[in-house]
Amino acid sequence: MSTKIPRSKENDYTPEMIAERQTFLEDKAGTTLHHTKGFTFDPESMAGNCEQLFGVAQVPIGVAGPLVVNGEHAQGDFYVPMATIEGTLVASYNRGMRVIRESGGVTTTVMGEAMQRAPVFMFKNARDARDFGNWVRDNFAAIKAQAESTTSVGKLLEIEQYPVHNMVYTRFDYSTGDAAGQNMTGGATFVACEWIRANYPKLRTYGLSGGMDTEKKTSFVNSLKGRGRKVTAEITIPRQVLSDVLRTTPEHLRNSTGVNTLAAFLTGASNNAAHPANGLAALFMATGQDMANIGEANQCSVYSYVNTAGDLYYSVTLPALIMATYGGGTGLATQRECLELMGCYGKGKAYKLLEIAAGLVVAGELSLVSATKTDKETGTNEWVDAHEKLGRNR
Amino acid sequence: MSTKIPRSKENDYTPEMIAERQTFLEDKAGTTLHHTKGFTFDPESMAGNCEQLFGVAQVPIGVAGPLVVNGEHAQGDFYVPMATIEGTLVASYNRGMRVIRESGGVTTTVMGEAMQRAPVFMFKNARDARDFGNWVRDNFAAIKAQAESTTSVGKLLEIEQYPVHNMVYTRFDYSTGDAAGQNMTGGATFVACEWIRANYPKLRTYGLSGGMDTEKKTSFVNSLKGRGRKVTAEITIPRQVLSDVLRTTPEHLRNSTGVNTLAAFLTGASNNAAHPANGLAALFMATGQDMANIGEANQCSVYSYVNTAGDLYYSVTLPALIMATYGGGTGLATQRECLELMGCYGKGKAYKLLEIAAGLVVAGELSLVSATKTDKETGTNEWVDAHEKLGRNR
Amino acid sequence: MSTKIPRSKENDYTPEMIAERQTFLEDKAGTTLHHTKGFTFDPESMAGNCEQLFGVAQVPIGVAGPLVVNGEHAQGDFYVPMATIEGTLVASYNRGMRVIRESGGVTTTVMGEAMQRAPVFMFKNARDARDFGNWVRDNFAAIKAQAESTTSVGKLLEIEQYPVHNMVYTRFDYSTGDAAGQNMTGGATFVACEWIRANYPKLRTYGLSGGMDTEKKTSFVNSLKGRGRKVTAEITIPRQVLSDVLRTTPEHLRNSTGVNTLAAFLTGASNNAAHPANGLAALFMATGQDMANIGEANQCSVYSYVNTAGDLYYSVTLPALIMATYGGGTGLATQRECLELMGCYGKGKAYKLLEIAAGLVVAGELSLVSATKTDKETGTNEWVDAHEKLGRNR
Amino acid sequence: MSTKIPRSKENDYTPEMIAERQTFLEDKAGTTLHHTKGFTFDPESMAGNCEQLFGVAQVPIGVAGPLVVNGEHAQGDFYVPMATIEGTLVASYNRGMRVIRESGGVTTTVMGEAMQRAPVFMFKNARDARDFGNWVRDNFAAIKAQAESTTSVGKLLEIEQYPVHNMVYTRFDYSTGDAAGQNMTGGATFVACEWIRANYPKLRTYGLSGGMDTEKKTSFVNSLKGRGRKVTAEITIPRQVLSDVLRTTPEHLRNSTGVNTLAAFLTGASNNAAHPANGLAALFMATGQDMANIGEANQCSVYSYVNTAGDLYYSVTLPALIMATYGGGTGLATQRECLELMGCYGKGKAYKLLEIAAGLVVAGELSLVSATKTDKETGTNEWVDAHEKLGRNR
Repeated sequence: MSTKIPRSKENDYTPEMIAERQTFLEDKAGTTLHHTKGFTFDPESMAGNCEQLFGVAQVPIGVAGPLVVNGEHAQGDFYVPMATIEGTLVASYNRGMRVIRESGGVTTTVMGEAMQRAPVFMFKNARDARDFGNWVRDNFAAIKAQAESTTSVGKLLEIEQYPVHNMVYTRFDYSTGDAAGQNMTGGATFVACEWIRANYPKLRTYGLSGGMDTEKKTSFVNSLKGRGRKVTAEITIPRQVLSDVLRTTPEHLRNSTGVNTLAAFLTGASNNAAHPANGLAALFMATGQDMANIGEANQCSVYSYVNTAGDLYYSVTLPALIMATYGGGTGLATQRECLELMGCYGKGKAYKLLEIAAGLVVAGELSLVSATKTDKETGTNEWVDAHEKLGRNR
Repeated sequence: MSTKIPRSKENDYTPEMIAERQTFLEDKAGTTLHHTKGFTFDPESMAGNCEQLFGVAQVPIGVAGPLVVNGEHAQGDFYVPMATIEGTLVASYNRGMRVIRESGGVTTTVMGEAMQRAPVFMFKNARDARDFGNWVRDNFAAIKAQAESTTSVGKLLEIEQYPVHNMVYTRFDYSTGDAAGQNMTGGATFVACEWIRANYPKLRTYGLSGGMDTEKKTSFVNSLKGRGRKVTAEITIPRQVLSDVLRTTPEHLRNSTGVNTLAAFLTGASNNAAHPANGLAALFMATGQDMANIGEANQCSVYSYVNTAGDLYYSVTLPALIMATYGGGTGLATQRECLELMGCYGKGKAYKLLEIAAGLVVAGELSLVSATKTDKETGTNEWVDAHEKLGRNR
Repeated sequence: MSTKIPRSKENDYTPEMIAERQTFLEDKAGTTLHHTKGFTFDPESMAGNCEQLFGVAQVPIGVAGPLVVNGEHAQGDFYVPMATIEGTLVASYNRGMRVIRESGGVTTTVMGEAMQRAPVFMFKNARDARDFGNWVRDNFAAIKAQAESTTSVGKLLEIEQYPVHNMVYTRFDYSTGDAAGQNMTGGATFVACEWIRANYPKLRTYGLSGGMDTEKKTSFVNSLKGRGRKVTAEITIPRQVLSDVLRTTPEHLRNSTGVNTLAAFLTGASNNAAHPANGLAALFMATGQDMANIGEANQCSVYSYVNTAGDLYYSVTLPALIMATYGGGTGLATQRECLELMGCYGKGKAYKLLEIAAGLVVAGELSLVSATKTDKETGTNEWVDAHEKLGRNR
Repeated sequence: MSTKIPRSKENDYTPEMIAERQTFLEDKAGTTLHHTKGFTFDPESMAGNCEQLFGVAQVPIGVAGPLVVNGEHAQGDFYVPMATIEGTLVASYNRGMRVIRESGGVTTTVMGEAMQRAPVFMFKNARDARDFGNWVRDNFAAIKAQAESTTSVGKLLEIEQYPVHNMVYTRFDYSTGDAAGQNMTGGATFVACEWIRANYPKLRTYGLSGGMDTEKKTSFVNSLKGRGRKVTAEITIPRQVLSDVLRTTPEHLRNSTGVNTLAAFLTGASNNAAHPANGLAALFMATGQDMANIGEANQCSVYSYVNTAGDLYYSVTLPALIMATYGGGTGLATQRECLELMGCYGKGKAYKLLEIAAGLVVAGELSLVSATKTDKETGTNEWVDAHEKLGRNR
């Protein structure tokens, strides 16, 4: 029997081709695909999303909410679809949303935007590299025109320069509208780079991806400069709400943040929060986002203090939140429906979705971190009722 | 209309409850859920996986392969199910698998194992903290017995100690069999900590999670000490294969790795590879893994050199690869079927799956990184045929 | 005129040779060396410390104190010689020592010890590398015997292993008595490695320094595992003392630490303190330490909280403090005298000196950080009387 | 006997006051200061450099050279004074300089300049923080005018912004002429901040140092954005020179750089070089630089490749090199003489000195790293003649 996966060059998405691949795989493995065959979408609609299609992953979706968001783009109550196979995850976020509701909602702000391509330019020596940097600054308008000639949406905002040795690593920063923008910025940057090559003879060579975009990875450059959108969600939680709903105190949550921040500093972690990846992954999966972006989107900073009224200020900043409401997987069958549940499908909705996502992260943090109580001297973490909590939150 | 999500305390997974929630959400949003209702699994089977269930995310699955793996646990040809909505992803990994086949397969090795819980112990002062460290070393056998009393599978291998100020941050390292092990180690560590508290009066307090597990986050402590399993996949690719299949050279790939490693070093990135998150997310989603683990599993190191025969040695080490073949989401409907396609469902299969995953990452790296050509002087990155490549790989 | 620096193979430290070099340099530069000739030490005593000697750097030394230390090795009042050319540095540390005195002294603890050499071992593939790791664990006693055969002082405590790809990076951790120990551990590790090479045929090659000692550099592995000695200095400062001496509050200092720790986390800094390098450099220079070690010794963690009595707990941990009281530059003319001022010259004094150094760092931090005042809402930093402070402290 | 260090408010630098402090210290310690009293400088000249002066640290200075520099500011042969107590250090750098001479010199380039103060601005919430960022961009000219009103030399080049939570961390980047510039930029930034406070009512408070300058510390933000001056030194070394002088090959040095860069990436080290801190500390000490700056100046990147002629391209970039030729300690007795030996004393000489320093680092790297030989298969590190090398280089 051939080892070659059946494939059609004409139309690889017909029911026949899919069935042929299913049979091929069943034969190879000696198993039967019952549920994996059970998709309701039109396979031909997958042509731009998945090659060598043979079935479906069915991931259960629960709903948590309402999440009350006081955003600039998301305002009101949201029921958040969360696709997950991790028991207690939806329940835990749901509990955090109650804290948010009883505190009047979570305030969300998109603080920055920059999707990157990051070419590296190589020269004979450091002086040529340095001089090129000046030339790029002087010719930014022309480079921008080249890049933007390829897209009606993307705008080149800045070219970050990091010269070292005989090279200049760069990051081309774009705004990308409702798309995540990796493809859009790739094409735009390529055209810009080719124009640079044609106009700067001292350029020896360049690589379209020099690595400083740190795409789908965490890094300190993303922590500092952001990637995709940088979004902050913040809330002031009354002492009484913390006590009633989470049986904890402002001081405990502040101190817990402190101990975790110290651990993150000492270990060089990309994140001083508890588990933003959990909520983000569930929302990403439900809404057709690129799941690989969890590799960078979960980078996170948490900060909190007890204000003069004795209440807790609590804030999360996600520096590399990458989500779309248009294109990619957002238009697929269930994915679009889930976006529509939040009024987030289509053009003009990206910031709204980002704000909901950031609010969701706050819900998850409050619920998990508060599954502890305070020590009177140092105010540090101690699990209460840990067996039950372990089952629920971990 | 109430804002409260319908929920039953008796059985929340009946068709009626699910329908009630669907109607509630449709009413709230003014939209209709067609496909999201279209699951084929038994909703009651989701009781431990997803609360407030109302539907399904349908994610298309393509197949790439065969991936030829020369592992200690995975040996032979594997057809890898990849759930994704990112066009060209399956095709790109498929191309990398051809390189692997023509090179005789990818060699995989599980190099280490350690799932953590990371309690922090607080004391009056640094001397008490230091002395506690010695006591823990002296009483390791007793602590181990306590921890292992809670599980038939988990074994406490080591207690890493990181004393600082008046605290001792620790990492309790376990082997966890076929489970990813986060819950197992949580319960075990809690019991151990409670025993420590009862037996070490100078302990002021402790937090069950002090943050140094860096769970679902990247960090340098995970890079160094590993988390879950540390897996290496390596291959020697003949010069001719690189030329024929990828139109590139050993020198180009080596130099490209060098430039990216320098970028990772300069930016503090968690990863000097191109895109391990892509393949891992697709495999994780198809096989019922916890998607949030992409937040740490994509941490990666790449290393390559040109050997004396002029061929390319190429290696990937994943220090925090967290996957299961039993429990969690692995037994769900489509997820189990996809595991079965690779002979990876159930007990005793975790290492096999890990080896396939690591081999998959190599396929993806080779395919993407080689979409460039070499410069004769510095041997650095230059995209060939870039328009076409951009469409295909990014 | 020759460009060759005059040098004698027989005795390069005679007055004649030194004068010849002085004349050579004066001629080359067309300048005159007045003060640089003005050393009082015997040039022949420099034979093991400085090649091609031609003069002296005269660095002024001021004294700060008394520094009240409640250590395990340093106990009582210490007058600390500080060699520096930075105006206000001595005065600033002196002010911090007053805070310490009025708080009853600073408590110091040596929490760990490990001077490293860090060979990397290379193999054909990852399996060989992993297996080697097991062999090293099984043969630790024999390797230890080899290493310790070269030194009467050094003890091999542990071999840290960091396998990756087809390599095993290691750190050989030693205790080194009163010496800093870089040379001692180099020789010991070389002998151990040669024994390993002779006894482990699958070893392909090794490098005596694979880079993971991160000698004279900061790193997260040093932050976690320590290098040289890890020393903590801690103090509880009464609210009244903070108010009287520093015109600040416990809350302000705690919040300031918080903001700086967040900055360190976000930037991947090696240090969340204000300026430990200042005091350490001055003490190192006065006492004949290797000044290049400032490159790693200034790695630092600060932690503080307000206790239930409303006073400030404040702590500094230096994970890579490398100092000696014997050998190296400690026996030179002025350097030995300065060590003697603190009763720290010679064998058996290293821990005492380390404790004084850590206490000194606390003095500097308190003085500089408190040159700010608190905001009532967030408690964050605001300079008071900034013009004057800038002149004094920066 | 009083514990109080004798001090005069009128003139603390008279021979009588110094003698009084010497006697005080001798009495306290029961020792005698012979050499420490032996300074040749005028104590009153130390008034701005060292408080509570009582003596001198005499550090031997050796000379290495000539170092052939092909800089933009330093051109020709330089004899480099190195103050050190570390035996073999001068000899090792001297050997590296021979390699440089035989290769035609080291080429040096100042690639960037930016001395920072890094205030953090606090707001009620993230939106206010974000809006402030826009206001700062719009009002840069006015802020710049305020800052520059305080100094005839310093120029405000840029205000880097890193918004997070309800704060905006900033870095005010200045050029500072021949001074290192920490004081100059402190005063300028303070005036700018006070003007901002007066003109931006929504500002809640600010801290003049928010920590992101990472002064006297290493960090990824310094690696990327630079601090002080970013300087590159590069050289192409003929294969024959490597063989003749260092008994090594281009391939070995390239591979050694690769292994060390991987180690730096894995450990989050601030430096992938061998020991830049050694040479820098010796030059800093001889020339009156602030020794505490070694804490950041030793951050370093190394990069190398074998070019098509089979020779070695080797480059070092120091992103945070902070040195002065005017002010601070540069005018002191021996320090000024050492600067004059290189024609580097006074105004207009800073770039020249920086170029010499960077060339010096290359000399040290070549000498130490080449104390190894190559393995034919992997090309990795193996010490030759290790006993002798250990004595000489470590």
